[in-house]
Formats: sequence, C-alpha cells, structure tokens
Amino acid sequence: MPQIMFINGPNANLYGLDPAGTYGLQSFPQIEAACRAKATELGIALDFHQSNHEGVIIDWIQQARQSHDGLLINAAGLTYTSIAILDALLAFPGPILECHMSNIWKREPFRHHSFISKAATGVIAGLGADGYLLALTAMKQLVDQKAA
Amino acid sequence: MPQIMFINGPNANLYGLDPAGTYGLQSFPQIEAACRAKATELGIALDFHQSNHEGVIIDWIQQARQSHDGLLINAAGLTYTSIAILDALLAFPGPILECHMSNIWKREPFRHHSFISKAATGVIAGLGADGYLLALTAMKQLVDQKAA
Amino acid sequence: MPQIMFINGPNANLYGLDPAGTYGLQSFPQIEAACRAKATELGIALDFHQSNHEGVIIDWIQQARQSHDGLLINAAGLTYTSIAILDALLAFPGPILECHMSNIWKREPFRHHSFISKAATGVIAGLGADGYLLALTAMKQLVDQKAA
Amino acid sequence: MPQIMFINGPNANLYGLDPAGTYGLQSFPQIEAACRAKATELGIALDFHQSNHEGVIIDWIQQARQSHDGLLINAAGLTYTSIAILDALLAFPGPILECHMSNIWKREPFRHHSFISKAATGVIAGLGADGYLLALTAMKQLVDQKAA
Amino acid sequence: MPQIMFINGPNANLYGLDPAGTYGLQSFPQIEAACRAKATELGIALDFHQSNHEGVIIDWIQQARQSHDGLLINAAGLTYTSIAILDALLAFPGPILECHMSNIWKREPFRHHSFISKAATGVIAGLGADGYLLALTAMKQLVDQKAA
Amino acid sequence: MPQIMFINGPNANLYGLDPAGTYGLQSFPQIEAACRAKATELGIALDFHQSNHEGVIIDWIQQARQSHDGLLINAAGLTYTSIAILDALLAFPGPILECHMSNIWKREPFRHHSFISKAATGVIAGLGADGYLLALTAMKQLVDQKAA
Amino acid sequence: MPQIMFINGPNANLYGLDPAGTYGLQSFPQIEAACRAKATELGIALDFHQSNHEGVIIDWIQQARQSHDGLLINAAGLTYTSIAILDALLAFPGPILECHMSNIWKREPFRHHSFISKAATGVIAGLGADGYLLALTAMKQLVDQKAA
Amino acid sequence: MPQIMFINGPNANLYGLDPAGTYGLQSFPQIEAACRAKATELGIALDFHQSNHEGVIIDWIQQARQSHDGLLINAAGLTYTSIAILDALLAFPGPILECHMSNIWKREPFRHHSFISKAATGVIAGLGADGYLLALTAMKQLVDQKAA
Amino acid sequence: MPQIMFINGPNANLYGLDPAGTYGLQSFPQIEAACRAKATELGIALDFHQSNHEGVIIDWIQQARQSHDGLLINAAGLTYTSIAILDALLAFPGPILECHMSNIWKREPFRHHSFISKAATGVIAGLGADGYLLALTAMKQLVDQKAA
Amino acid sequence: MPQIMFINGPNANLYGLDPAGTYGLQSFPQIEAACRAKATELGIALDFHQSNHEGVIIDWIQQARQSHDGLLINAAGLTYTSIAILDALLAFPGPILECHMSNIWKREPFRHHSFISKAATGVIAGLGADGYLLALTAMKQLVDQKAA
Amino acid sequence: MPQIMFINGPNANLYGLDPAGTYGLQSFPQIEAACRAKATELGIALDFHQSNHEGVIIDWIQQARQSHDGLLINAAGLTYTSIAILDALLAFPGPILECHMSNIWKREPFRHHSFISKAATGVIAGLGADGYLLALTAMKQLVDQKAA
Amino acid sequence: MPQIMFINGPNANLYGLDPAGTYGLQSFPQIEAACRAKATELGIALDFHQSNHEGVIIDWIQQARQSHDGLLINAAGLTYTSIAILDALLAFPGPILECHMSNIWKREPFRHHSFISKAATGVIAGLGADGYLLALTAMKQLVDQKAA
Repeated sequence: MPQIMFINGPNANLYGLDPAGTYGLQSFPQIEAACRAKATELGIALDFHQSNHEGVIIDWIQQARQSHDGLLINAAGLTYTSIAILDALLAFPGPILECHMSNIWKREPFRHHSFISKAATGVIAGLGADGYLLALTAMKQLVDQKAA
Repeated sequence: MPQIMFINGPNANLYGLDPAGTYGLQSFPQIEAACRAKATELGIALDFHQSNHEGVIIDWIQQARQSHDGLLINAAGLTYTSIAILDALLAFPGPILECHMSNIWKREPFRHHSFISKAATGVIAGLGADGYLLALTAMKQLVDQKAA
Repeated sequence: MPQIMFINGPNANLYGLDPAGTYGLQSFPQIEAACRAKATELGIALDFHQSNHEGVIIDWIQQARQSHDGLLINAAGLTYTSIAILDALLAFPGPILECHMSNIWKREPFRHHSFISKAATGVIAGLGADGYLLALTAMKQLVDQKAA
Repeated sequence: MPQIMFINGPNANLYGLDPAGTYGLQSFPQIEAACRAKATELGIALDFHQSNHEGVIIDWIQQARQSHDGLLINAAGLTYTSIAILDALLAFPGPILECHMSNIWKREPFRHHSFISKAATGVIAGLGADGYLLALTAMKQLVDQKAA
Repeated sequence: MPQIMFINGPNANLYGLDPAGTYGLQSFPQIEAACRAKATELGIALDFHQSNHEGVIIDWIQQARQSHDGLLINAAGLTYTSIAILDALLAFPGPILECHMSNIWKREPFRHHSFISKAATGVIAGLGADGYLLALTAMKQLVDQKAA
Repeated sequence: MPQIMFINGPNANLYGLDPAGTYGLQSFPQIEAACRAKATELGIALDFHQSNHEGVIIDWIQQARQSHDGLLINAAGLTYTSIAILDALLAFPGPILECHMSNIWKREPFRHHSFISKAATGVIAGLGADGYLLALTAMKQLVDQKAA
Repeated sequence: MPQIMFINGPNANLYGLDPAGTYGLQSFPQIEAACRAKATELGIALDFHQSNHEGVIIDWIQQARQSHDGLLINAAGLTYTSIAILDALLAFPGPILECHMSNIWKREPFRHHSFISKAATGVIAGLGADGYLLALTAMKQLVDQKAA
Repeated sequence: MPQIMFINGPNANLYGLDPAGTYGLQSFPQIEAACRAKATELGIALDFHQSNHEGVIIDWIQQARQSHDGLLINAAGLTYTSIAILDALLAFPGPILECHMSNIWKREPFRHHSFISKAATGVIAGLGADGYLLALTAMKQLVDQKAA
Repeated sequence: MPQIMFINGPNANLYGLDPAGTYGLQSFPQIEAACRAKATELGIALDFHQSNHEGVIIDWIQQARQSHDGLLINAAGLTYTSIAILDALLAFPGPILECHMSNIWKREPFRHHSFISKAATGVIAGLGADGYLLALTAMKQLVDQKAA
Repeated sequence: MPQIMFINGPNANLYGLDPAGTYGLQSFPQIEAACRAKATELGIALDFHQSNHEGVIIDWIQQARQSHDGLLINAAGLTYTSIAILDALLAFPGPILECHMSNIWKREPFRHHSFISKAATGVIAGLGADGYLLALTAMKQLVDQKAA
Repeated sequence: MPQIMFINGPNANLYGLDPAGTYGLQSFPQIEAACRAKATELGIALDFHQSNHEGVIIDWIQQARQSHDGLLINAAGLTYTSIAILDALLAFPGPILECHMSNIWKREPFRHHSFISKAATGVIAGLGADGYLLALTAMKQLVDQKAA
Repeated sequence: MPQIMFINGPNANLYGLDPAGTYGLQSFPQIEAACRAKATELGIALDFHQSNHEGVIIDWIQQARQSHDGLLINAAGLTYTSIAILDALLAFPGPILECHMSNIWKREPFRHHSFISKAATGVIAGLGADGYLLALTAMKQLVDQKAA
C-alpha cells in the first residue's frame, strides 16, 4: 500500500474561516477528513500534516525520504519564498504534487512565482478542496506507474 | 448532459512524436480517444479541437459562449503570448480549466508566465495525458456545482 | 470620395455583450451601423471589418495600400503584442487612427503598451462608440488635408 | 450651458513656434481662438488656461470642482511626472479628457507613460489643434450624457 | 516654547471631501483645528501650512531653518517625486516627521516610494488625522530630547 | 478592557546592545517595561512577545484571532521577506499597527519593502522605543473607535 | 535531391515596395525567382512560401517534418513574438536557417530578440536578397553533411 | 554684448551653508558676485537668477528665447525629474550649459540621470563655484562662435 | 583556546546522499568528524550544529555572541533569503566565515545572491568538505590576529 | 583586387581544441587555410588576424581605414562588452560583416547582445567555419556592389 | 611647476576625421597642439597620451601616482565599461578631471553611464576641444588649491 | 611536482599602498614572496604573474593549458566585465580557483557579479593575503585528487 505524505503550510489551518471565501467554505478539518476518505478509497496510506514552521516542513520532507512513496505539498505562503523547502524537495526521490486551493496566478503578483514548482512533478491549483482529492488520485497513478 | 469544449493549441497534434518525451509517449489521437472515453464515463458531451491558428481558437471560444457549459484549454505556445485569447476567455461565463501536459515552470523562463491563468478557474499541469482526464473530472464537478 | 477602411480586432464582435459594460452598451452591429451612418454624413466610403485572425487583419491592411486613403484600427488584444500588424501599418502610406472603446491605460498593465501607436497618426481612446464617430470625423479632415 | 475648463501645461504657449513643427503650425493664440469658436458653436462656456506652474494647474483643477462640468487637460511635460496633478484630477467628479497635440507614443520613451490617463475618461492624441476641437465635441457629448 | 512647522502638500486641502473616504471624514479645517488644539495642549507654537505649489513648500522649509525647531510634513503627491523638497529637508537641522493620512503602501505601486523618507527622522502613516496628533506628540519629545 | 498583542521579531531581543545605536540605547527588557507601563496607563491588557522563529510568530497571530482586539508587530528582518506572516495578518480581523525602531527607508535598499504593510492599518517608524508607546496610544484609539 | 522549404512571414510580400529601402530594392517575386534559380543551380528542390498568418506558417513547418530535409525561415514580425512557431521548429529534425533581409540588431529594440534563433542552426541577416542565396548555399552544405 | 542668463534651481540659495560642504564653502551671494565679476571681465551681460519654483524657471527660460544669446542652468533637484524644464530648454535656440557644483555621479543613484543633459550643449560638474566661472568662459566662446 | 561555532543550515544533513554528488561524496557525520579532527589539530574548541529551522539558527548565533570568538556558517537554502539571519550575524562582534560546499555562482541564478556575505569577513565556496577544513584554518588565523 | 581584413578575437586560436565541439572540429590554422583558399578563389587579398588583446584589434581596425575595402570580424568574447571596438568599427567606411562560429543566441544569456552588430552591415552565425567562407563570398559581393 | 598627465582612450586619435563631426572638426594632432600651448600658458608640464589599449592606460595612471599632480582623462569607449581603469584612478591621490568631446548623455543609452565619474573630481563634456582647454585651466586651479 | 600559475589582474601590484587598507597592509612583492614560500612548502612549482592588460592575462591562461596543472586567478577589476577571460578559463582543463583579497560582495554593487566564477572550481574571498596561501593549499589538494 503506497505511503503518501500531504504537507500543508502556514495558515492552511485557517481555510474556510475567511469570510471572503478565498480558500473555499470547507474548514481545514473537513478538508482533512475528505482527503482521508479519498485515500482509503484509493488504497493509499495518508500522512496529513500542517505546520506554520518552515523548519518543521523541511523535517517532514526529509523523513519522507525514508518512508514515503510520494509527496503532496501546499506550501502556502512559503511557496513563493522558501528555497530551503525547495532543496528538501529536490532531495526527495518520488513524485511530488504541488497543490493550491486558489488559482495563485489570479492573485497578487508576489504569488505568481513558485519555488515549489521547480521540484514538482505536477501542479493542481484553483480547484479548492476538490483539487486536493484530484491530487490524491493523480498521486496514486504516479506511484503505480513508478512501481510498474 | 453538460456540453464541454476542449481546445488544444499549436503543435499539440505532435504530442508523443518528440523523441525526448517532453509531452509524454501517447500520440495526440490516443489522447483524444482517452478523453472521449473519459467524457462518456462522466456523462459529458465533449467537443475536442486542435488548431495551430490563434484566430480559429478565438472563434471556437466565442462559439462556446452560446452552446457550452465549460471550457478546457491547453493553449500551448500561445499560452504565454496571446492577450486576444485571454480576452475571449474573459467573455466566457462558465468554468475554464487550463491544462498543460508538462510542468511549464520547470522549462524555459519564457514559459513561466501564462495569460490563460488570468481567466482560468483552475490549472492542472505536468501530469501528461492523465492530467487531461483529471481535468475532465474536475470540469464535471464544476458544472455540476454551478447547476446545483 | 475618400475610401476608408475600419478594422476591428479579436472579440470586438462581442462589444456590448459584457455585463460589466467595459466596452459600452451598444452591440457591435449597432456600432457598425452608427459608423456607416456617420460615414455617409461625412461623404466617406467606409469598409468596416472585424476578425479574430491576425493574418486576416494584415491581409486587409495590405489590400488597403492599393485602394484606400486612410485606416482606422482597433486591434483589440493584438494591440499589445502584434509586431506583424505594426509592420503592415508601417507600409501603409496614408493616415492611420488608432481607436479603443475603453481607456486602456486605466486597465491591466499589460494593456498600457501599444505597438499600433508606433505607426498611428493619432489615438482616440476611452470614448466608447462615440469615439469611433469622432475618429471618422478626424480621418475625414486628415485625408482632406492630404488631398489639399 | 455646460461649464468646461481647458488647462494647458508648461510650454504649450510656445506651440507653433518650433521650426520642426512638432506641435503643428498654429500659434497658441490661434489654437485658443479656434477652441473658443468651437465652444460657441457647441453651446459650451469655455475657460481656457495655460500655465508653466504645476501648482497653478492644481489650483485651477480644484476650483473647477465647484463650478465646472468637465475638464480638458494637456498637461504637457507634467503629464509624465506629476502625481500631484493626478491626485487633483482624481478628486474631480465630472468627465476628464486628456489631450496631446502630438502622438506621445511615437516620441522619446519618457513620454510613453501618462499619470493623467489614470484619471481621464478618454484620451485624444496626435491630431494637432484639430484634436482639441474634437475633444470639445466629445466633452459636450459626455456632459450631455451625464445630464440626461 | 518650541516652534514647529507643519506643511501639507497638494490637495491636502480636499481631505474629507472624497466620498470614498480615502483620507478620512474630517475636513481639512477640522484637522487643522485639532492640530492647533493639540499643539496648545503640548506647549508647542504651531505654524500650519498647505500649498499645491512645490516651490512654496520649499520656501517654507528654507524659512523654517532660521526659526523653527522641528518640521512635520505630508508632501502628498509630491512625496513620490520631489527631489527638490528632499534637498530642502536635507538642509534642515532639526527633527523631521513624515506623515500620511492613508497607508501609502496599501495603495498604487507608484505611492510605495518616498523621497521624503530619506530625510525624515520618523514616519507615521495610515492613522488618519489621529496620526497627525500623534506626530505632534512625537515631535514634542524629539525637540525636548534635543534640547536636553 | 481591550486585549492587545505586541509581537517582536528576530533579534529584537538585542535592541540597545548594538554599540552603533541603530535601535536606540534602551535594552529590550527596558522597552518591554515601558510598554507595559504605558498599557496600564491606557487601560490595555498587553501580551508582549518576542521570537526569532517565523512559525512561532504565525502561531501567535493565529491565537490572537480568538482572543485579542488588536495587534502591534515589528517583524524585524522578516518584515521584508515573510509572505507567511502577511497571510496570518490578513486573516486577523482587528486593527494592526506595524512598528519599526529605525526608519527602515533610510537604511539598505532591501529594507525598503514591507510585506507587513499590506495588512497593516498604520505604520510608525524611526521613533525608537517612543514610537512603541505612540503605537500603543494609537491602538487604544483604534479599538475604541471600532467598539464605538 | 534535397527537399528544402523556405518560409517567409508577414509582409515579406511587400519587400522592395518601401520607398526607404529597408528591405532592399528587389520585389518579392524577384527575390523568389532568384532563390528558385539558385536552388536549381545547387540541385535543391525548393518550396517557397509566404504568409501573413502564423497558423499557416506552423502548418507548413509541421508538413515539412514528413517531407523536407531542411528549413529556411524569415518569420518577419513574428520572429520576435511567436513561441508557437518556435515550438513547431523545435519539433523539426533537420537543419534550420534563420534569415533576415535587414540587420535586425540595428533597428528598434523590440527587434533585437528572436525566438526563432532558439531553434535555428544558424542565422544570416543584413545581406538583403543576397543573404537568401547564401542561406540556400549554406543549407545545401548542411543537408549534404547530414547525409554524409 | 552677449546677453546670458544663468538660472539656479531649488535650494541653490543655500550653497555654502551645509556644514558637510557638499556644495563648497562659498555662500550663494559670494558665488553670484564672482559670476558677475567674471561676466564683466568677459564682456558678457549676465542675468543671474535663483528660484525654488519650477514654473518660475520655465518662465525665465521662455523669456530668454526673445532676449538672450545663451543659457547656463543648474536645475539642482529638478535636474533629475523635470521634463517640463527640458521642454522649455528644447525650445531655446542658443547654446545651453548645464552646471553642477558637485559631481552628481558620485552621489545617490537618483542623481545620476539628468533630463537637462538632453538639451544641453555641454556639461560642467564637480568643480564648485570655479566651475561656474569656467562655464561663463565656455559660454562666451560658444556665443562668439555662433556669431562668427 | 578559541571557541568557534560552525552552523549548518537546512538540508546540510543530507550532504553526500545526493546521487548526483552536488555536495560531494562524504556524509554529513563524516564531514562533522573531519571538522572536529581539524579543530583539535588547530587547538580550537568547536561547536558543530545543523538545523532546518531558521529560528534555531538565529538563536545559536545570538548565543554565540556571549561565548564564542568566531562563527562559520553555511546557511544553505537560507543564504539567499534570510535577512533575519543577516541581522543576527551583523550583531556578532567576531569574525564570520561564509562556507558553501558547492560553487553557488555556477548553479541556478537564485543562488547567486547571498545575504550572509553582507556580514561575512570572508567566503570559501566550491571546495566541498575540504573547504570546511580550510575555513577552520582561516578562522584560527583570524581569531589569533584579533587576539594579538 | 579588393583588400579585406578578417579579425578574430580572444581565444579564437583555440577553435577545434574544445572536446565538446562548441566551435566545430577544425583547428584555427585549418580555418585560416580554408579562408585563404576561398579568398584566392574569389579574387580577394586577405589579411587574416587573431589577437587576445582588445587594443590590438582596435589598432588593426584603424589601420584598415586607410588600406582595406571591407572588414570581417569575429570579436569572440569582446563582442558582448567592447564599446571601444564598436567605436573603431563605426569609423570604418566600408562594409563590415560580423561572424560567429556558433549560434550565440542559443548559448548563455550574456552572449545574446552584440555591440558589433550596431556597426555591422550583416551577421552570419552558427555555421562554423563554413560560415566564414560564406562571409567572404558575401563580402566580395558587397565590395563589388560598392565599386559598381 | 605642476606635472599633469592627459590620457586619451581608444579611437581618440581619429577625432576630426568623422565626416559627421561628432567629435568636432579639429584633428587629434591639432587638439594636442592646442593643449600643449594652453599648458605652456598656464605654467603646466603636460604629458599628453593616447592609446587604444586599456592596459596601457592603466599603466600610465599607475606611473602618474609617483610623478604627477593631476590627471585629465577621456577614456572614450572604455568610459562605460572599464572597472579596471576606475580602480587605477581610485588609487591616484591627486585631482582627476573626466573630459568628453561630445555630450555623452545626448548619444546612445549605453554611453550614459560612466565608471570614470566615480573617481573624478569633476566632469567637462560636450564642449569639443575647447572643453579640453577649460579642463586644463580647471586642473591648474585644483593643483594650486591643493598646494596652497 | 605540480605546475601552478597564479595570475593577478589590473592594479593588484598596488596592494598595500592604499591608505584605507581595502586590500590589506602587505605590499604586492611581500604577498608574492609569501606565496612563493608557501608553494615551496607545499611542493608546488609556482608561476606568479601580474598584468594590467586583459590580453596578456588571456595569453597566460592559454599558455597554461599546455604546461600547468592548475590556475589561481584574481582578475581584479576584470572579474566583473571580461567574458574574454572567462572564455579562456573555460578552455582550461584543470582546476581553477578564484581569489579576492577583499569580500567583493560587501563592496559596490558592480563588484557583486563575477564572470570568473562561471569557470572556477572554487572561490576564496575576503581573507587578504592569507586567503592566497589557503588557495595554494586548496589547489595542491585539487591537483593531488585529480592525479590520484
């Protein structure tokens, strides 16, 4: 059974609390529950993490090198600035999917450049929590293809 | 039954012919067939187009305003340069998904900026032909949500 | 009787259909009718064209070299990107007026630079369809002055 | 009877004196006379000003807030640099037309950016003194539409 | 008793008249009155000026060199463009406080750079007319410290 | 009694230790004591924090969403780089004041751009520890106005 | 006998008609005739095309993949803007020569960057129609070397 | 006897008062006196002006068109920003010398670009008040050459 | 005996694990052992640290202010982005050496700018683990010179 | 018999020695010999030079003003940086051809800008040593046309 | 008697030979003769040099450190590019005057930045050979002031 | 015995003569002597060169290709500008060490970019003459490793 880690960056735990609905209407625990259900459906073992600390995120990515087959990451505000996370991702041998709840290229210009993309296999953005479930589906295909 | 148009831009018809495999190993007719099968499975009526002509692509987007519920578009090389296609997309009232076979942000710098993104609901990139099928799934959800 | 060609670029045929009213409330056929009426009033023979195809627009400009005394052009989304249209205009010997329904310098930054301006005698922007009629009046004066 | 103020910026009083003819062949008093005649024809009460002083121009725009229905402005060399004039214009509630004798986008690059445009309803450039008369015509339409 | 000059730049006299409330709801005479009351409370002799003329502002700053202990300045639209005012401020030996009613860094990009800051002791922005009173308080402390 | 959190970023704990006096002569504990005294005077309940860890600062801002009425923040070196802190601030519903001991716009160019400003109500800079006390006063007014 | 396609872009059909002589004095039919004569002399089968339509040019390049050994291309105004043509060229397996009648680096700055160059084997510019004949000679050598 | 106007811009009247000596040790009246003495020696009729007002400087330049043979100008802080002064200078038919007390290219980067230079015959900078006297000598030669 | 702290940034603990050998072939524990041996040989007391957390690195630098004579730092991915670490280093009174295993100027452009360099005495890069030993040797000389 | 000088810049003497074959497989003496043979065939008197010294290259260009009819130049690494060579070329009255063994626009970005192009009649690049022979042919035509 | 070295850079020896008269009508030997006559008049011992070789110019500047009191330099095309000459000048203890025959800021943009200015006491440009004589006069004053 | 060439660029011969001590207090002959002593200690045959001429430096690098095992280079002011030296270095097959007496990244911005780094194995900067000795030590290790 493939081991997948899903890492959420700073402030992701506030999703759904913004009255303007930038990040959809589902709360973060609801999103996590939906991901866990989807993982069960797909036959994936899912580690679902969130942290506001860049260092913790790097620690998780390094741990995943030993134990996980694929990584999903929404680095949130660190997407645009963290070369340290990029370096950790570049050292991860499996497939990596970059996820964003919102379409970051329709937002402020400082959100139009992603360091995560330089290490990612693929990118899914702008589809809200449904995009997370699609990303899990895509990851399942990627690890199956690699295993094949 | 939702009417969906899928527009492929210049040189997409060559996918799979590049020995370096930038755009995967499936030929364009194979990709089209896979999309049609997926559409049937999802209960979507699919118009699948390809053109090397910017003007033809704009004509199709304008026609879709009257008759289609959602648009999928991989504008290929026009992604980075065509404000005219962007203007056509901005006049389309339904959901729009931007698709790319490759992860454009890992390629040459002139492929890192998309005018299409400014009109797109969401973006899926780097997952090859499988990303096209995911995009169809996501589009089905978007038109269902809008209809609800 | 002066021969004048008025060329409208991509998506101009959608004018008036945008609920936000960016390009005024008149439909494109209404605008064309108003221009034809004004031309008759001014004693101008008017060719009024619209295309979504850059190549067609260039073809028209080249044809006008032989047969027309002045050009009005709203290149729409191609205004900002088409050096090929600029080159065609640079080869046109008569007066050229650049028209825009909206004030392009109040819109997104990528609409603040026009290649058309480098070949245009004058520019009229932001006055909606009324600006088109003013442009016809101005063109009449320009061709009369040249003929004088 | 609509009250219109027409403000001319630094060195406009020298128009027609330049042997190279950049700004046409009519002297500034001739241009003023033509504008006054046109205003009479259109049924407009016209205040026609010129100053080399940015502060005086801002004073006039502020005065116009109380007493005038529309503003025409050729800020000349201040077009490209004066955020203070822009701020005064942004506080003016009626229509504003930006005028230039020459096509500023065909001249030196430092004349390609206008702060005035950010507050203007429309722009007319490159048509010499005839463009001033067209601008008066357009202004008449704008104040009539607003009054309607 | 410390002599303080407070200089307000172009269009500051319109504060409170903007229906959008960018600069608060108090009229400029009300702001002046509040500042005068605060100055009396603090034991400061206050010269409160406003001009739309850059040259007048420079003249005032030069006069203050001889007679005043501190300067408060909201150069408004000249903040972003006037090196001449900067040069006058650089020649003023006492403390200088830069004030802005609005938070200029949340507004258009051309308001994000201040030449005044290069000469200012401190900056207070975004607090409306209350910020002016705080600035007077801060200025009192600065001149007291210098005198000590 | 209003609940206010004051967050100090990396190296703020070294204030006063720099022989060049960039950040004034008061030690950080002295600054904290002065702030606490001022808060008592103003009738504010003050949480005063300092951390060198971006993640800890984000955690604090998130906690303040539930329990605090206003935020003061000197993000120090993170001011210029942390979009993650900006995102946390953007999710805080109350007033936010950005504080800097020094006038950051007189220092190195890389200190001239603040991500914090994009979320801040107001900014006070360059007034040393006295500026902190002014910021507390301003915050009291802001929360009182909101409560009114 | 090597099959060579020579593609000319927008407005190339006007060469020689410009009174300023930017593109030499020979008409386009004369240039074509000279190229055909040179091809015969070199033992090359030459397809000589011109179009104002980007899409048509891409279609031709794609067709050449199956049937031609080498490509000569003067993309004219599309040289500087068309990533779609670049993508088509990148998929062509044989040698590609970029030709320009004029020395584009002595002209306006927007003509100093070529997307075609990124796919071209070599570049010949500034030698007028004679440069076309040299390019045919060079192409003959390139296809001979490849065949060897 | 040649009529020469020497215009000094904002804050020039403070020369010699800066303790750091950026602009030399001579006071502005001393500099003026030295210039007048030199003019007498050279047989030049000298109008020596200073203003902090851009508009006044433009007025003087325009007046000089009728009555003066040459212009010397140190536009001070307006050197770097005033296109309006540039436009006035471009309309002056005689020789123009740009003067600076200090070597502006050794100072802050925003002083490294001069709009005045685009209209000036020559430039003398960094030689303090002695440079003014050299400029008078040079101007005498220029007007003599023109008269010859 | 001089007290030296050697700080390694994010992902340095993965050195030697990259199959491409970007950071040499020695594992991080091997590098640490070599440094410790060299320190013993040089008569240096060495604290050797690694962390993925920016805040931890700042904490260490601050601690070193009290207890250490010199700092060696390879901030890894934080080199290019962390002004907070720079600020901590600027407050360290002893010599600082910046170390990099790889030659960062031969890698991606975003690795060509170092904030660490602005505080460092010297830089050693591109020499792999041997460069670390050289840096220890250089540090010994620097602290000896300072002590002398 | 036309006198032609062919100047090769720094490191051109190493052509053919690079194992990666960037500059082809022929040694520099072989290239020179091929050029000399071609010159004989064309009836050209050829001076063929190479130097690593910018000053020597300028000296040669100056000498050629008196004695030569045309110049071929591959300035190699000086192409991108030497305004001094450009100035020498601008003073040469005859035709100038810029040659490059490789297609410089496919290489590092710092090789994409040529100062030589600003003085060159034409440019031939990317065709290796064969391009040199073509350039000689083209030069023959240019000097013949000029003589005609 | 003060020892002065006057260094002229690449292509200065061609002055006066350009039919367009960019650098005046006097030949370089005539300019040298005029400078020598002026030096005699001023009581200056003048070394007058010209070279096309950057290295030779640096050698001369270094020699002047031991033996000369002041330097005049027109580095010509090296003005804009040579940091090595700048470094040599920075090590020269006496006054340095930068001279240019033409007004370099009215010419191509790549001539608008001078590295020489960063080391020069003053700059004289645009006055042709007369500017050289003025520079000698100014240098005499500078060395006299220093000696005083 | 390994043959090592150490090349010093323009003005390096002045090291130690600058009263500000930018490049340390040792004279260039003293530095050379220290390097020679270190080379003897390491068992290296050292060629130690200095030139102010770019061309001479390129000649030396080319000669070293035949006869030397490693290169040390401090290109001084040419570091930032010479692509010609870079090209010579790129053709050298052995290890290359870039040395700088000062930490160039703490100096003027135009010294923050090195073309030498693109060819160098490693970089040592900011350690004065001691850095040269460390570089010799490092070079010994590099040539030994290569030989092993």
